[in-house]
Amino acid sequence: MRLATVRQGNGTRAVVVGADHLELLPHPDVGSLLVASARRGGDGLRDLSGTRIAGLRAEFAPVVPRPSKVLCVGLNYRDHIFEMSRVPPEYPTLFAKFGDTLMGADDDLVLPSGSTSVDWEAELAVVVGRTVRHASVSEAGDAIAGFTVANDVSMRDWQHRSGQWLQGKAFDATTPLGPVLVTPDELDGAANLGITCTVDGVLKQRSSTSQLLFAPADLIAYVSRFTTLRPGDIVLTGTPGGVGAARKPPEFLRAGQVLETTIEGIGTCRNTCVQEASA
Amino acid sequence: MRLATVRQGNGTRAVVVGADHLELLPHPDVGSLLVASARRGGDGLRDLSGTRIAGLRAEFAPVVPRPSKVLCVGLNYRDHIFEMSRVPPEYPTLFAKFGDTLMGADDDLVLPSGSTSVDWEAELAVVVGRTVRHASVSEAGDAIAGFTVANDVSMRDWQHRSGQWLQGKAFDATTPLGPVLVTPDELDGAANLGITCTVDGVLKQRSSTSQLLFAPADLIAYVSRFTTLRPGDIVLTGTPGGVGAARKPPEFLRAGQVLETTIEGIGTCRNTCVQEASA
Repeated sequence: MRLATVRQGNGTRAVVVGADHLELLPHPDVGSLLVASARRGGDGLRDLSGTRIAGLRAEFAPVVPRPSKVLCVGLNYRDHIFEMSRVPPEYPTLFAKFGDTLMGADDDLVLPSGSTSVDWEAELAVVVGRTVRHASVSEAGDAIAGFTVANDVSMRDWQHRSGQWLQGKAFDATTPLGPVLVTPDELDGAANLGITCTVDGVLKQRSSTSQLLFAPADLIAYVSRFTTLRPGDIVLTGTPGGVGAARKPPEFLRAGQVLETTIEGIGTCRNTCVQEASA
Repeated sequence: MRLATVRQGNGTRAVVVGADHLELLPHPDVGSLLVASARRGGDGLRDLSGTRIAGLRAEFAPVVPRPSKVLCVGLNYRDHIFEMSRVPPEYPTLFAKFGDTLMGADDDLVLPSGSTSVDWEAELAVVVGRTVRHASVSEAGDAIAGFTVANDVSMRDWQHRSGQWLQGKAFDATTPLGPVLVTPDELDGAANLGITCTVDGVLKQRSSTSQLLFAPADLIAYVSRFTTLRPGDIVLTGTPGGVGAARKPPEFLRAGQVLETTIEGIGTCRNTCVQEASA
């Protein structure tokens, strides 16, 4: 099943995305839908039905507009780790983002006026469907509601102002998330999906989720050892090689460029870069 | 004025803390009170009135139980920076916590079974009272609703599993916050308040907020350059020297010990350490 949160008037609605139609659900967004589904024992995503609308035209909000937690993983692609001649880490490198960082899959990406090094990071995002704490890897796998596409757009100058990356990762509305959540059954658990990032059509990143050192269920289980994950929470699983800062010479996003982030079987976030007016 | 969130039955209530009485307000907690106050133009904390209860007996919840954002600052005390022979940083070291980390001022501190190095970090916490983005330092100062006491209890082994500190700082219910929010007018802006941390009555940390390199308004203004802060959001301003990990030999919290964190003019968080059963 494919779910999305679409904009309607001043609000949003959760929808099932069909082959040639949308089905408008009674929930305001996919986060609320997942909370309601979990209350009904976790199988609440079955038998969804709503008002059928022909066609697929929609303006996408972030799949989950207001998650209670967004966690991100640093170096997590084997090919990238070996490319950098690094030893695979024993533990995932984890940091947090705020829900305010999220933006819709086709929204303009506003390049912050305070940064001169806005970079891309194509990522598979995992959406939690049940409340978990101290979960085994198996329980964690069962708690995954689905997968979506994200780009952990990073202001490298701010990121490296200190040893802690938050301030380069937490600019409001700089992380596309969408367009759709796809349930695990349609993706074979997302174990081997192509992932790419292009800028103006030029390929910058290409890998497969088979290269993930810590798989989605591993990450959910690990995080649940210290904190509770709830329906709608998001874990970004890290980015493959090919980011702008690592290129020679370094490349960063410029106004007018189009950033496309694609994961096979899920879809594409397509974001046109526009320059923020000076604050 | 002194405000608190106290537990009542299965819920909580915001209260004004008087000299010898509590005044029960209609809001479920101080976070909701601040949101309502901001809607009324920011002066909503004046003329609060509720049901007067004689005496001061109360069980404190975190002053703001569910902030949308909690930011923390690394090295920020001048005396500690010089003690470590470090150069004062140009930018604050910022990281995030989840709201789930918060606990009441007198709650037991459950030492996570997965950690063998639970450490203390006494901190002044700033509570935001208005929505701010791209605020000047003056605007940021005006946006401060008040100050409270926190202890950024840190699982050092987890904190240093990677370069990003989150996983050592984000265990559920390990950050005491309270007992009360004190408005800036009663604290002269919190510019020169004694701060101490003791374990079983033995002094471990002692400094003054006059030693803060980045003052509360500086921090709010800086954070607002990348993200929106809203009523009830929390900024922990960093800890002075004397943490357990830096002692020779290192010292960590053990079950049965009592951790007390005090800021002059605000109050004390008093937390008895208990061992978590193995997960």
